[in-house]
Amino acid sequence: MTEQLMVKQERAARTRETLIRSAAEVFDRDGFSTASLTAISSRAGVSNGALHFHFASKAVLVDVVEEAALTRLLAVTNGALSLGAGRMQALVDVTHALAEALRSDVVLRVGFALSGETSRSARMDLRQRWRCWVEGTLKQAEAEGELRRGTAVQDAVTAVVAATVGFEVLGVSDSTWLSASTVTRFWRLLLPTLVPAAGLAVIEAGGTRCR
Amino acid sequence: MTEQLMVKQERAARTRETLIRSAAEVFDRDGFSTASLTAISSRAGVSNGALHFHFASKAVLVDVVEEAALTRLLAVTNGALSLGAGRMQALVDVTHALAEALRSDVVLRVGFALSGETSRSARMDLRQRWRCWVEGTLKQAEAEGELRRGTAVQDAVTAVVAATVGFEVLGVSDSTWLSASTVTRFWRLLLPTLVPAAGLAVIEAGGTRCR
Repeated sequence: MTEQLMVKQERAARTRETLIRSAAEVFDRDGFSTASLTAISSRAGVSNGALHFHFASKAVLVDVVEEAALTRLLAVTNGALSLGAGRMQALVDVTHALAEALRSDVVLRVGFALSGETSRSARMDLRQRWRCWVEGTLKQAEAEGELRRGTAVQDAVTAVVAATVGFEVLGVSDSTWLSASTVTRFWRLLLPTLVPAAGLAVIEAGGTRCR
Repeated sequence: MTEQLMVKQERAARTRETLIRSAAEVFDRDGFSTASLTAISSRAGVSNGALHFHFASKAVLVDVVEEAALTRLLAVTNGALSLGAGRMQALVDVTHALAEALRSDVVLRVGFALSGETSRSARMDLRQRWRCWVEGTLKQAEAEGELRRGTAVQDAVTAVVAATVGFEVLGVSDSTWLSASTVTRFWRLLLPTLVPAAGLAVIEAGGTRCR
């Protein structure tokens, strides 16, 4: 491959990333149905032709934003695996990381909002993916003896998924719903019903990641 | 007033109600930005002229749907006052009534969804109104000694509001999130952290309304 071709390909990849981010910003501001391709290309600082070179239509662009958001969600949930602490601490840490990412990353935020778009059938459905991850983690916590006797896993899944989706939705107009202190207060309230007293003493409701 | 005039006024009021309901149904199906006035009038079985006689523009119609939804929310929250039971039971009962109303009443559902429309500044903001009601009720519960010592009211407000908004949002594509059993399971999990053991024995997580 010539150096010139590599430079061209790198530039195209960068333009593509810029367009995905700009699209998410315009979707976030104007809504999916009213967002215009012209607004997106001008925000990205490229021509309409360049936009069409990368993405054939608005529908394609919406799908690509959702895919990029899913990649980010997976990065957040996979971040928990390397910690080595218990499953419940991983769950707490990941909800903190998710809230922080939703606050700072417009692509992730827009990807989640797409789950609720009734005028379009969500392909990835990030809220559903999140629910599956929470369910899997709580089941592992139960299997590894981290849950209090008598705690029904499905009750815990319901409460955690509903509350976190609530934070996501309410955080759109008021970001304090996605603050570390809101997430910490939620866990401080809920953890005593989920884990036994001995487990409770070693779990940090505020999360254990360096942030 | 002549009888003829009364008949005319009654018919106009009925048409207005039908238009509000049809508008909510079309907003629910097509989204706010893409919904057309023609789709709304034809769903209501009236002419475009009749629609314009009642509502000058789509923006007016959106505001009126939100106002109608707020009236319904107030009917749900006021339903608790006559019960005579404790504040916490009222809170549990009202969340059940709200979930049921969100499941069956498209106007209420659309009114809540309007809170999340970033392309429009919500005038009534139903989610915010709901939050205020939950906060007021939990503060009264605390003042009347119904909360467990050590329970921070704001933590409880955060968890209850986030989870119920989560149910509302997730219920749009999967109505089991708004089922009585989901709401009951949520309360069964949360109540032990909110009320003392003696109070717990007398609170029905499944609600005490005749339904």
